[in-house]
Amino acid sequence: MALDQRKTDFTQVGTRPNRPDGLDKVTGKARFGADVTAPGMLFGAILRSPHAHARIKHIDTSKAEALNDVKAIVTRADFSDAIQPAPGLEGEQWNVLENVMAGDTALYDGHAIAAVAATSALAARDALKLIEVEYEVLPHVTDVDKAMAKDAPVIREGAADYSVPEGMHPNVVRYHESGHGEVAAGFAKADLVVEEHFVTEATHQGYIEPHACLAQLGQDGKGELWCCTQGHWYVQKNCAALLGIETSQLRVTASEIGGGFGGKTTVFIEPVALALSRKANRPVKLVMSRPEVFRATGPTASTSMDIKIGMTADGIITAAQGTFRLQGGAFPGAPADMTAMCAFAPYDLQNVQQIGYDVISNRPKQAAYRAPGSPMAAYAVESVIDELCRKLDLDPIEVRLKNAAREGTKASYGPKFERIGLVETLEAAKAHPHYSAPLKPGQGRGVSCGFWFNHGGETSVSLSLSEDGTCQISVGTPDIGGSRASMALMAAEVLGIPYESIRVTIADTATLGYNDVSHGSRVTYASGLATIKAAEDAVVKLSKRAAAKWGIPEDAVKWEDGHAVPSGPNAGNFDPIPLAEITRDMGQTGGPISGHFEATPEGAGVSFATHIVDAEVDPETGKTAVTRYTVIQDAGKAIHPTYVEGQFQGGAAQGIGWALNEEYIYGEDGRLQNAVFLDYRIPVASDLPMIDTVIVEVPNPGHPFGVRGVGETSICPPLAAIANAVSAAAGVRLHALPMSPPRILAALEQQRGTAD
Amino acid sequence: MALDQRKTDFTQVGTRPNRPDGLDKVTGKARFGADVTAPGMLFGAILRSPHAHARIKHIDTSKAEALNDVKAIVTRADFSDAIQPAPGLEGEQWNVLENVMAGDTALYDGHAIAAVAATSALAARDALKLIEVEYEVLPHVTDVDKAMAKDAPVIREGAADYSVPEGMHPNVVRYHESGHGEVAAGFAKADLVVEEHFVTEATHQGYIEPHACLAQLGQDGKGELWCCTQGHWYVQKNCAALLGIETSQLRVTASEIGGGFGGKTTVFIEPVALALSRKANRPVKLVMSRPEVFRATGPTASTSMDIKIGMTADGIITAAQGTFRLQGGAFPGAPADMTAMCAFAPYDLQNVQQIGYDVISNRPKQAAYRAPGSPMAAYAVESVIDELCRKLDLDPIEVRLKNAAREGTKASYGPKFERIGLVETLEAAKAHPHYSAPLKPGQGRGVSCGFWFNHGGETSVSLSLSEDGTCQISVGTPDIGGSRASMALMAAEVLGIPYESIRVTIADTATLGYNDVSHGSRVTYASGLATIKAAEDAVVKLSKRAAAKWGIPEDAVKWEDGHAVPSGPNAGNFDPIPLAEITRDMGQTGGPISGHFEATPEGAGVSFATHIVDAEVDPETGKTAVTRYTVIQDAGKAIHPTYVEGQFQGGAAQGIGWALNEEYIYGEDGRLQNAVFLDYRIPVASDLPMIDTVIVEVPNPGHPFGVRGVGETSICPPLAAIANAVSAAAGVRLHALPMSPPRILAALEQQRGTAD
Repeated sequence: MALDQRKTDFTQVGTRPNRPDGLDKVTGKARFGADVTAPGMLFGAILRSPHAHARIKHIDTSKAEALNDVKAIVTRADFSDAIQPAPGLEGEQWNVLENVMAGDTALYDGHAIAAVAATSALAARDALKLIEVEYEVLPHVTDVDKAMAKDAPVIREGAADYSVPEGMHPNVVRYHESGHGEVAAGFAKADLVVEEHFVTEATHQGYIEPHACLAQLGQDGKGELWCCTQGHWYVQKNCAALLGIETSQLRVTASEIGGGFGGKTTVFIEPVALALSRKANRPVKLVMSRPEVFRATGPTASTSMDIKIGMTADGIITAAQGTFRLQGGAFPGAPADMTAMCAFAPYDLQNVQQIGYDVISNRPKQAAYRAPGSPMAAYAVESVIDELCRKLDLDPIEVRLKNAAREGTKASYGPKFERIGLVETLEAAKAHPHYSAPLKPGQGRGVSCGFWFNHGGETSVSLSLSEDGTCQISVGTPDIGGSRASMALMAAEVLGIPYESIRVTIADTATLGYNDVSHGSRVTYASGLATIKAAEDAVVKLSKRAAAKWGIPEDAVKWEDGHAVPSGPNAGNFDPIPLAEITRDMGQTGGPISGHFEATPEGAGVSFATHIVDAEVDPETGKTAVTRYTVIQDAGKAIHPTYVEGQFQGGAAQGIGWALNEEYIYGEDGRLQNAVFLDYRIPVASDLPMIDTVIVEVPNPGHPFGVRGVGETSICPPLAAIANAVSAAAGVRLHALPMSPPRILAALEQQRGTAD
Repeated sequence: MALDQRKTDFTQVGTRPNRPDGLDKVTGKARFGADVTAPGMLFGAILRSPHAHARIKHIDTSKAEALNDVKAIVTRADFSDAIQPAPGLEGEQWNVLENVMAGDTALYDGHAIAAVAATSALAARDALKLIEVEYEVLPHVTDVDKAMAKDAPVIREGAADYSVPEGMHPNVVRYHESGHGEVAAGFAKADLVVEEHFVTEATHQGYIEPHACLAQLGQDGKGELWCCTQGHWYVQKNCAALLGIETSQLRVTASEIGGGFGGKTTVFIEPVALALSRKANRPVKLVMSRPEVFRATGPTASTSMDIKIGMTADGIITAAQGTFRLQGGAFPGAPADMTAMCAFAPYDLQNVQQIGYDVISNRPKQAAYRAPGSPMAAYAVESVIDELCRKLDLDPIEVRLKNAAREGTKASYGPKFERIGLVETLEAAKAHPHYSAPLKPGQGRGVSCGFWFNHGGETSVSLSLSEDGTCQISVGTPDIGGSRASMALMAAEVLGIPYESIRVTIADTATLGYNDVSHGSRVTYASGLATIKAAEDAVVKLSKRAAAKWGIPEDAVKWEDGHAVPSGPNAGNFDPIPLAEITRDMGQTGGPISGHFEATPEGAGVSFATHIVDAEVDPETGKTAVTRYTVIQDAGKAIHPTYVEGQFQGGAAQGIGWALNEEYIYGEDGRLQNAVFLDYRIPVASDLPMIDTVIVEVPNPGHPFGVRGVGETSICPPLAAIANAVSAAAGVRLHALPMSPPRILAALEQQRGTAD
């Protein structure tokens, strides 16, 4: 039974069945964060700071408390300041609490100050107006470069960690530096060195479903929480720590999720709802409004970046250097390290240096957004490579192929790559009809590579067989991209039963071992690996039952196509037994048959993509139309190709929004000016071309079926590829995202001015 | 690590902490069957037959369907007649379906005919009135003896199985015969033979919570069901079969349960709610009214019994013979076999024969009620033994001790007893102050023994450890008697962590392997055994992590009091590591730590009890007062003594109701006349004395901690013990239950008449 050898002859994996949760989702039956209720339920609402930075001198809740409909009001005093840090979260825990409910200082516009639970949502919102807060407004800063400047107001004393070099402004809280070789020597060998400065604005993940939860917590420290999250075990341990209860006593169930993209990997309203419930002794529902989502959840970091690359005349990169300054809101945590580490990862470089700064400001704490940091780094780096190609008159794909990282390459961030598929994506791009298709006048074409690490993470999967030979799988990673379908396909492949006979359930925290968040493109890799291993565990038990029935040794049974088959000297002596025949009387032959697997798999293969984009810029309005888009990405092995393609297209679509229109706009007063979808412009259908996809499959040696994560890499190249296409179309290089019509017009104007 | 050896030095097992679900239950937060809702939910109602037996000639639903508020109506046509029997349920499945929704014939008053789903409960009930059913009323029978008589109407042709002797009425559907020796020869050796006839009426389990469920089933055959049940896997496979879907596609969650006592071990409304949901394409809630519970769920069987026992002058039973006729409603399934098998089980008999008849009639299909059949059998047998003792002037406990079954006794129903505790309960009864306390004038004292098999059954348990060293257990047996507390105590004992740090969850069918119903007194035994084994599995994994940390062999680590401890040559070389230190970084040392166990344990030890009852009969009114009650029962090992005592007291309390007042009263028209609690009189607090308890502990060799089930044996002796006390007090033997005031008055009158 060598089931865990690399498999290549798939019968179910690689097909495209409907997702099992599809009908419920399109008919409205699926239950999302706000869809659950409980008898006696109250409704919560949160009072938020109208100031970007202010000392909270006094909170008077008495008038609100006097209302009949108000059953509880909580402020920071209702959380434990002596929080018990959850393991692995020691440094982070206080920041999470401080972000969930302000202590003595409001750190950004929208920071939570107090919360009310009342008998209706309207009553709760009305009660907020009766809470009186006395603020002492403090100077604020919301821009990364200004926050690093000498005269910047200090957001929080003592927030910086040991890594920050001396002499930096206290708003610089973490520092990263990595690389190898000698960049100065490298630059000296170059025929051309280009150094440019780029900035990007914060963008939001733009998930359609606002954060929502229903909380019930008793005075006995036992509670239940239903919420929309990418990781309910993380929610469980964070909330338990913030409320001062034991982790196991809080049962957290993840609802269906209406988008997350990294933005639902932490807690915002959940601890507040629990605190309200504990105080009111009733269940409390809390649902964010869209402005609350914008003002008080985690967008991506904004950046200020300097990139310097040297190249020989024939396209060999001799040295590369990048400085990445990330503004991550009022708390440490902006992925300056990952941004820096991803920046040059696609290339095999002799001399490379990358530096990252994590900078705090008076904005909401940034959260993960699909490959955190990598898209911005790729934007800057791949723009400079594009400039080098243009100036040296080299083909951008050929240059990338010449410098591409391969198996054995020492990565810019340290390790040696195992088998990777960058070259294959570049070859596929070169061969793709898109790359050689003629452009219309006014159009430009851009290409870019992108890289993401991918992640393994703690994972537990259990599955059980029903007497009728069907199967139920419990996974702990919320299904954010079709993973129920992928898990069912992988289990069906191992067990040899139909895909349709498997039900995949996202188990709650009480009924399965620990699972990391659905992030890091880890689900198909890690939960998939665990599903395969759990199915193999069940196959071992099924085979034992057959061996016992036949009276032959356990290892003399093979599992083939859903049947126990006698092998070796017993081959042909007995008729194969189908799975359903073994499960039919499993209760009488030893008991129920289940399969289990728990591990922290560490073989998540890194992943690369190459995107090709055609864009057309209207010189009158500055509006950009993306006219053609092709995503070419290495999936390792595409379990369900349709959903892999969906990830490819989704990353490109979000990248188009980020590149062209999306941005957080803060006023001089430090308040967010565009906290609704009318003003924060995500792409709509008419903004998008058909996005073509090519799945490259270079198997990941760390997964039994060769799977690599695909969810994040797809958003790494778009910003750069679009920027390169826009630059080619407009004839001018833009150094700031989004490349919105006003910015493009300004650049065109400036160019004309320069040209004149 | 010999953790599975019989343990006797307990630190947590045997203590009496509060139940973890207690606060939620007393504050109203616990969610029972009717407490869950879903967006867009409809409300169901069921139309029921007003006839005891009638052919359904035509159902016209058109007027009801025309109502705006009505979204679906189902009749039998909406269930598959070509049902796919679930494994293990082949014979039973059709009966379940027929009972859930009548086919061409209404078989009892209250039999479901059609069901409506509408936008409100009121609208649904109103719509029922517009459904027109054309019945052809057929002759009916509701009494067991009449149903066996030659001229009885045939309830259903072809319902009888192969076991029934030729020449019996077709209403006799199953036959049981067992025993050993030669009863005729045995009776010949007796100094006295007593033969008497007894009848008992059907009683209801009297659970406070009516059946309730919320169902959601899609056209794609995928569904969810929330319901109040003792066994959601049984519900899952039954409903799946009746709806023609795959078992794994129906996820069933058990709500908290407001009593079951055997009555919630099957399905009634659940398949109907699912059929309505599938048709309406919306969630449907269905909640029974109290009259529906009485008319259309499963009470116990009524009986007609003949007992003949021979005894020597010094109290040795020479032969025993019993005939047990059980009326089980309109479908096969009355426990005639178990009734017969339990009847003489407490005694070591040379010559014994027992015969059981399962008889159908125009009543609702009987369901299990706490030790199904055994209380009635004990009532008849122990009454006759009491008569023998009275007539031979022998002490009833001494006689029982002389004849008591012991380890090695060949049981009346076949097998040889392993270690059992009957003698210990009798010795404890003899020594108990109650037994020697003086009686007041007009009072009588009765004793009785009782027996129940106890059951193992298919069981799956998983548990997982949280990073903070706390534990979550998933069991699949609904908590009907404090099992969350018992499971937590057993796991705490093995893991060496506080009871309070464990959360026990009743997992739904999608997230755990198969579990049999919470019945057969199996939960503390089987789920307990599985919990212990799952905890031991976790301990093995914990010990491995410690071994890896210390660099010593895995088997060189002992687990003591919640710590990994180096042993053997490594003893003392390393400091013991507490569990929470291992779990804190388990993600980095190999992944999440869980424990699992699945099996069908077969060592459920049989259990015996002896009850002592004092009763006082008011000769004016015929009212009986139970003045003192002592339950003495072998628990094997009492995990949580308070809940063991609760089971003892609960069995006695229900037995008091059954003995004195409870009965189904059918009119000449075959309709139930007392379908509400005002007319069906269960005991209230003022009817009950303080019930004293003595826990005897004779360890069950089939359980690592020695546990025997305790839930059912406690209801076996009460009917007989009370009957014996009443007979002593009233000076007349009653041969029918309940011994209600009218029956007692009639008996007293008859005796006076005889005396005159």
